[in-house]
Amino acid sequence: MTEAIDFYFEFASPYGYLASLQIDAIAAAYDREVVWRPIMLGAAFKATGSVPNIKAPLRGPYFLRDAPRSARLVGAPFVLPKAMPMNSLAASRAYWWLMSEGDPDIARGFAQAVFHAHWGEGRDMSTVDRLLEITGDLGIGPDELRDAVADPAIKERLKAETDQAIAAGVFGSPFIIVDGEPFWGADRLGQVERWLATGGW
Amino acid sequence: MTEAIDFYFEFASPYGYLASLQIDAIAAAYDREVVWRPIMLGAAFKATGSVPNIKAPLRGPYFLRDAPRSARLVGAPFVLPKAMPMNSLAASRAYWWLMSEGDPDIARGFAQAVFHAHWGEGRDMSTVDRLLEITGDLGIGPDELRDAVADPAIKERLKAETDQAIAAGVFGSPFIIVDGEPFWGADRLGQVERWLATGGW
Repeated sequence: MTEAIDFYFEFASPYGYLASLQIDAIAAAYDREVVWRPIMLGAAFKATGSVPNIKAPLRGPYFLRDAPRSARLVGAPFVLPKAMPMNSLAASRAYWWLMSEGDPDIARGFAQAVFHAHWGEGRDMSTVDRLLEITGDLGIGPDELRDAVADPAIKERLKAETDQAIAAGVFGSPFIIVDGEPFWGADRLGQVERWLATGGW
Repeated sequence: MTEAIDFYFEFASPYGYLASLQIDAIAAAYDREVVWRPIMLGAAFKATGSVPNIKAPLRGPYFLRDAPRSARLVGAPFVLPKAMPMNSLAASRAYWWLMSEGDPDIARGFAQAVFHAHWGEGRDMSTVDRLLEITGDLGIGPDELRDAVADPAIKERLKAETDQAIAAGVFGSPFIIVDGEPFWGADRLGQVERWLATGGW
């Protein structure tokens, strides 16, 4: 029962953002580590025949109401971005590059900064130039970031991570796996906490 | 703030069932009535390009795990039906016939009996014959039920109710509207309660 918790998410998902603000504290209360795993959710949508919330009739308008309402409920900074869904390719590749460099803390700090800029401040984070606006404080070199996002090995890493997620059953964001047990959605965080506390029910 | 709460659901949805066990008590605590509104969710799925959970890759296996797990969490009787999704046409028409007869209590008792038989006991409830297994205690006549389910006016009523739901933004089950505010999912019941308590946030 000491395995790390897998926290799968898509940067373009506000529910992934809301979960990102809570998952580490929940895990820490039970002495668990969390591995943050950004993926390209569009690949999973192809498998399930789904589309982003914002693009679906009926679900789109609901999403525009539910996401800010859910953020207000937990007191999270939230500004609806003008561009939705953001293209998370550069951000996701950058994350896995930082992970491959061997520093999960910097990678996590980067992911948190992307989420905050996009969902907390409403800024588009779809390009390397936009990402560079937030990486200065993290000690990430601009040239290294540009090279990494274009690096075939890093492209392949993100693709492999996404494929692995789908193989593990991931089809939405956030998607949290605790000791093999899958939980989909920020609204399952209470169940995640209870699963950690009790080992299941 | 004294309007009735609209509780939209699909009999084939286990999350609709779980919400049905809780919504009346939540509403009663704030002196609210609830109007139960079964619809044919497939019509909304056509609008959103969605399919039933059970038929979707990845979502299907998750659903088979999440639905019983969510039921256990609230202590609800739960047996996965062999036939999923059930065809809810006869049950939904029967419900609106009972409503048109002017007795919402009998209609609600019928809906609760359908939900219990299908999700609490795993029985298929797709046909009039199956429905007749549970209607005896409710004082519903077999011949009247058969006639009602085949009645063009009742067919039209269910279609109109479904169309109205979609026009109100309904695309999933359960879908609860409180003073114009929409909540999708049994996992939003906590928010529904808080909305009733606070008038919004």
